[in-house]
Amino acid sequence: MKNKSTNLRVRLPALIFALEVMIVVLYAVFVTYEDDANALLQNNQTQPMENSLYKNYPFFADIQVMIFLGFGCLLAFFRRYGFGGMVFNFLIATFTIQWAILVQGFFQFYYDGKIHLGVLNLINAEFACAVVLISFGAVLGKTSPVQLLIMALLEIPVFGITEWAVVKYLKINDAGGSILIHIFACYFGLGVTFVLYRPSLNEGHPKEVTSYQSDVLSVMGTLFLWVFWPSFNSALTFKGDDQHRAVLHTFIGLSASTITAFALSSMLSKNGKISMADVQNVTLAGGVTVGASVDMMISPAAAYVLGILGCIACMLGYKYLSPFLARRLRLQDQCGIHNLHGLTGLISSLAGICGILLATEETYGPSLYQTFSHRAPPEGDPLLARLQELIPDLEAGLGRTAQEQALFQVAAVFVTIAMAAVGGLLTGVVLKLPYLASPSDEKCFDDELFFNVPPDYNCVNGPQDVWSYVLRDTNKTDADQI
Amino acid sequence: MKNKSTNLRVRLPALIFALEVMIVVLYAVFVTYEDDANALLQNNQTQPMENSLYKNYPFFADIQVMIFLGFGCLLAFFRRYGFGGMVFNFLIATFTIQWAILVQGFFQFYYDGKIHLGVLNLINAEFACAVVLISFGAVLGKTSPVQLLIMALLEIPVFGITEWAVVKYLKINDAGGSILIHIFACYFGLGVTFVLYRPSLNEGHPKEVTSYQSDVLSVMGTLFLWVFWPSFNSALTFKGDDQHRAVLHTFIGLSASTITAFALSSMLSKNGKISMADVQNVTLAGGVTVGASVDMMISPAAAYVLGILGCIACMLGYKYLSPFLARRLRLQDQCGIHNLHGLTGLISSLAGICGILLATEETYGPSLYQTFSHRAPPEGDPLLARLQELIPDLEAGLGRTAQEQALFQVAAVFVTIAMAAVGGLLTGVVLKLPYLASPSDEKCFDDELFFNVPPDYNCVNGPQDVWSYVLRDTNKTDADQI
Amino acid sequence: MKNKSTNLRVRLPALIFALEVMIVVLYAVFVTYEDDANALLQNNQTQPMENSLYKNYPFFADIQVMIFLGFGCLLAFFRRYGFGGMVFNFLIATFTIQWAILVQGFFQFYYDGKIHLGVLNLINAEFACAVVLISFGAVLGKTSPVQLLIMALLEIPVFGITEWAVVKYLKINDAGGSILIHIFACYFGLGVTFVLYRPSLNEGHPKEVTSYQSDVLSVMGTLFLWVFWPSFNSALTFKGDDQHRAVLHTFIGLSASTITAFALSSMLSKNGKISMADVQNVTLAGGVTVGASVDMMISPAAAYVLGILGCIACMLGYKYLSPFLARRLRLQDQCGIHNLHGLTGLISSLAGICGILLATEETYGPSLYQTFSHRAPPEGDPLLARLQELIPDLEAGLGRTAQEQALFQVAAVFVTIAMAAVGGLLTGVVLKLPYLASPSDEKCFDDELFFNVPPDYNCVNGPQDVWSYVLRDTNKTDADQI
Repeated sequence: MKNKSTNLRVRLPALIFALEVMIVVLYAVFVTYEDDANALLQNNQTQPMENSLYKNYPFFADIQVMIFLGFGCLLAFFRRYGFGGMVFNFLIATFTIQWAILVQGFFQFYYDGKIHLGVLNLINAEFACAVVLISFGAVLGKTSPVQLLIMALLEIPVFGITEWAVVKYLKINDAGGSILIHIFACYFGLGVTFVLYRPSLNEGHPKEVTSYQSDVLSVMGTLFLWVFWPSFNSALTFKGDDQHRAVLHTFIGLSASTITAFALSSMLSKNGKISMADVQNVTLAGGVTVGASVDMMISPAAAYVLGILGCIACMLGYKYLSPFLARRLRLQDQCGIHNLHGLTGLISSLAGICGILLATEETYGPSLYQTFSHRAPPEGDPLLARLQELIPDLEAGLGRTAQEQALFQVAAVFVTIAMAAVGGLLTGVVLKLPYLASPSDEKCFDDELFFNVPPDYNCVNGPQDVWSYVLRDTNKTDADQI
Repeated sequence: MKNKSTNLRVRLPALIFALEVMIVVLYAVFVTYEDDANALLQNNQTQPMENSLYKNYPFFADIQVMIFLGFGCLLAFFRRYGFGGMVFNFLIATFTIQWAILVQGFFQFYYDGKIHLGVLNLINAEFACAVVLISFGAVLGKTSPVQLLIMALLEIPVFGITEWAVVKYLKINDAGGSILIHIFACYFGLGVTFVLYRPSLNEGHPKEVTSYQSDVLSVMGTLFLWVFWPSFNSALTFKGDDQHRAVLHTFIGLSASTITAFALSSMLSKNGKISMADVQNVTLAGGVTVGASVDMMISPAAAYVLGILGCIACMLGYKYLSPFLARRLRLQDQCGIHNLHGLTGLISSLAGICGILLATEETYGPSLYQTFSHRAPPEGDPLLARLQELIPDLEAGLGRTAQEQALFQVAAVFVTIAMAAVGGLLTGVVLKLPYLASPSDEKCFDDELFFNVPPDYNCVNGPQDVWSYVLRDTNKTDADQI
Repeated sequence: MKNKSTNLRVRLPALIFALEVMIVVLYAVFVTYEDDANALLQNNQTQPMENSLYKNYPFFADIQVMIFLGFGCLLAFFRRYGFGGMVFNFLIATFTIQWAILVQGFFQFYYDGKIHLGVLNLINAEFACAVVLISFGAVLGKTSPVQLLIMALLEIPVFGITEWAVVKYLKINDAGGSILIHIFACYFGLGVTFVLYRPSLNEGHPKEVTSYQSDVLSVMGTLFLWVFWPSFNSALTFKGDDQHRAVLHTFIGLSASTITAFALSSMLSKNGKISMADVQNVTLAGGVTVGASVDMMISPAAAYVLGILGCIACMLGYKYLSPFLARRLRLQDQCGIHNLHGLTGLISSLAGICGILLATEETYGPSLYQTFSHRAPPEGDPLLARLQELIPDLEAGLGRTAQEQALFQVAAVFVTIAMAAVGGLLTGVVLKLPYLASPSDEKCFDDELFFNVPPDYNCVNGPQDVWSYVLRDTNKTDADQI
């Protein structure tokens, strides 16, 4: 009954062309340039070098590298699924950004009947893109490009609404996106993979292995992410000292989690050896853990401790929680996003709440009301005028206390998890529809299904048996190997 | 009669040392620092942070990555020619930049008897470098490093003269270099490869295949180019809103062409599978197609459509035009530069002309005369003074109408194609001279000819027969493969 | 007697956790934010976009890529030691930066009882990191991660003291770090490898070979270093024209050394072929050679010549000096750091001295006393006031003559070499202590010792014999190979 064909020849073009028509019509009707990209609005007051482009573009360029090369290489860790990891990442990322420009634009950059487009939208769209790519990690190797595009198509609106609700109504502090990006992406991905559960894969899959080259490539992806993560976490903070701290904390958190990952990897492996999967993933935990408090005055030592804590949680998650989730809760989390983004995101949220509760005017001075903008006095409050003498750019806030802000943070975590999980489950149901070219169990993690592979594919990436065959008859001279 | 040896031991050093002596003498005599790099010109008016370095260097750094890593990896797609693709790219790029600093410097940065060197020259030189590297794509694997250096030596002056004639006399709009960079490079490369025609290669060459690793590497090159293309297309626009739009349009055009490439790749392949060659090349078409109109107010939707159109033209070119050119017109275009740079460049030129014809003061306001600087009123025109009240930086122009400007654009396309084709043909003739270590037909696409290869070279990159041998005797257990 | 086990299970975690406790305590007690990252110090005078972050972060981001991807890929050139090269680089770099923030912070950023942390410290820490990674090159493949961490732990304080003594007391010109970074790193590494001498490795080691993929990867590392080296050499110069020249000179020097390396590589190889080891290393020589004079008005031609000279010295070093040092002086310099950093560093120091002796007010104008800040008149000198009218930012100096400054440069070279060599020797002695998991001779250059390797490891990276076996029985059809 179900259409089992995985031939993309009609499906993929049909879907992509339909999406393109939709997007081009919506762009034509709704999208115009933001003021800083609009020639009509330039006049004798315009200082070209003060165009917002120059504030945002360097961070955008760094995030570009993370999205396309960082995620792309990192996800190419399977021996027979390097094309799939890197190339589907490319496809989904480009579609997601086009789509997020519209969806986020509608929620955040819409006025006078138009979405106003500038590099700032692109940064936001790349954040949305990171969300989809993280969720993709949960179902890597088990989904067709058709399914992945539909996942992106559905995830972005759910994310857009959640982001809008949290940013506009709950008004939280989450500069690095630990709640909105990492927690959302994680629980959405878990929702999808829950529905797409494949019992037979719980026994392990013969193609679910890495190769020497794919491991190296994946570490390169990790390094791209590592190197530019400070740009990611600081791209949307306040300019000035807030952004400066965000860079410092991210860097410190990441470096702490990196060396901790090496310690734990050798400590928890049976033979005392380091696992490449840990180097590829667990090292990055600190970047997430510092996220929610990344612009606060938490102190460098606290960023260091957060990096260590995130790393420990992430590592224990990989070791003990993921197998449990897969066996007991039908949560086959292919890349372990629950460890790298979920657990660390929760720790980060908690740290953000601590950062909020501990923040005082003694530490921050009047710019307390800038970093925690919702604690600023509301419009009309005489205190606001006095503060604005000290910090001219200070905007009116909601007059929240630290405790109130903390409660809103908690609410945001729950709202985000709920929206993500429900959205993910429903998306999973849609992805089970026929005609979406879902691969059969035995074709998972295999590039041959969707790609024309080069002639060496079945040799270099062949089943271990080929190698065993070669080696069986060979006098092994490398006798010193362990 | 002809010297058939391909030994580089004397030839390559002799050529390089001769070039170096020439360059060092010319640098010593002619090259000095531009004002912003000259200590003598700093005084109490100097604002160090307003040095032009800070406006140009970030874009320069991005283009560096494109030239050395982007092109380098992209060109390393052959199984047995990874060293050649990546390393000859490195060699040619470095020589070209040294040489272009002189040639372009002489045409564009020469006054008071000196070429004035700053980072702006380096950006221009990297553009010249891109030209040579694109042309290199036409003859990849079929040329020796000696030939390639001579090609660069000859191409740069032809390019320099063309650029100077077009920029100084025709005065066109071509911010992204679709005409001067892409069309020039394409037809120059086609000219060279026409002369270097090798009939025996039309039947296909056993080494003209990729490997799994080389395909992945080449996609990485594509991603480096993709990610930084907005910097490439916007590096030489006006600062401010023009540069902002250039970034937006490039990004949108690229993302549109990327998803279109996936659709077309699966649609046009016999088995509905995606081809890595399409992912490596066709995805990038949109970056070229938006080039000539990249700083205009064409609207985001138009950039999107241009991306799609460029992608379609490029894809059909690979599929139908390239085989025809090779068989009928002796144009063996190894990397298909005519599809990725020629066809797209022509579409881009047309789009630029449309952009010029449709540009009005209603859309641009007075900055119309900045984006289309040659339409600005000439010196002495009272209109100029009035415009300068609105846009103080506005410079006097030529008072061209849109139609006049459009005609100059058309003229520029023809001049560029003519200069490039003739230059390429003559260069091809020079490259056929003896003693240039041209590889024999059977040695094409093979690193062993010019490199000391590691011990695994003939195994991993060996003829398919080795693998067949291994596999023939093996019980294939991977029975589920298609 | 000696503990010969190389199991990391207890050793590595124990060491890392001890280091982490030390660092977190020291951070908590001593490290606070620098003024530009401190919310408390923001007031109504603060211009957020003038935060030092925006001057330093772009250079920091570029150097990040060099440290993690550049060094990481470059050091992954061994066939069976790709994990080790790339991943130990990652481990050491992250630890070194954490540690250097403290050590350098104590010497350079300590006041009011606190180390003041900002992005500027991170740039300095990455320079310290480069020092350790260069030294690591001398002992690559022959050391355990435990030894490497201890090496970093000891090298940083020796480097910190040397840097402090040279910068604070000798006060030299060395913008690109040729003396403090490259010479120091080289002689420290040689000191370590002298003590760790392994006679059996002088005969060559069966695993000391590259593979096709590892050679390509290593060239990518070279390209990352190449592309961003201008940022490295210019990160700590004066802003404005000095930094502009540093970018230009580095670029020119590198491109000159690159094409020279190709010439020499083919000229000095027996069969006229190019060696990948030369492409990977010798091409970079120019970046070091221009270092000490990189911000001076040496002229572009001089930068070009320095690139050529550095390349020649480096190449001859690899060809003739390294084998001599290994056989006669017990200096087994695995990556040839003496050629790429030592010899070139010495040439650079000499060039710096020439640059100092030849610098005149005719060439530099009053900013002579900015580039050569120690030649500025001392506080109170009436000349100083007159100069400050011309260059308002000019600071009081020591009133040194060019000759005096040159002598201090010479002193700095000798002090640096002495400190580095003694420090390296003592560190080597410490690394010979038992329990540090030092690999046995036959386990050198082998990832299997410290990593869980993927199933294809012993096949793809297997001993040549496996391949011989396969090939022996095969009809070689690739008959045209040389």
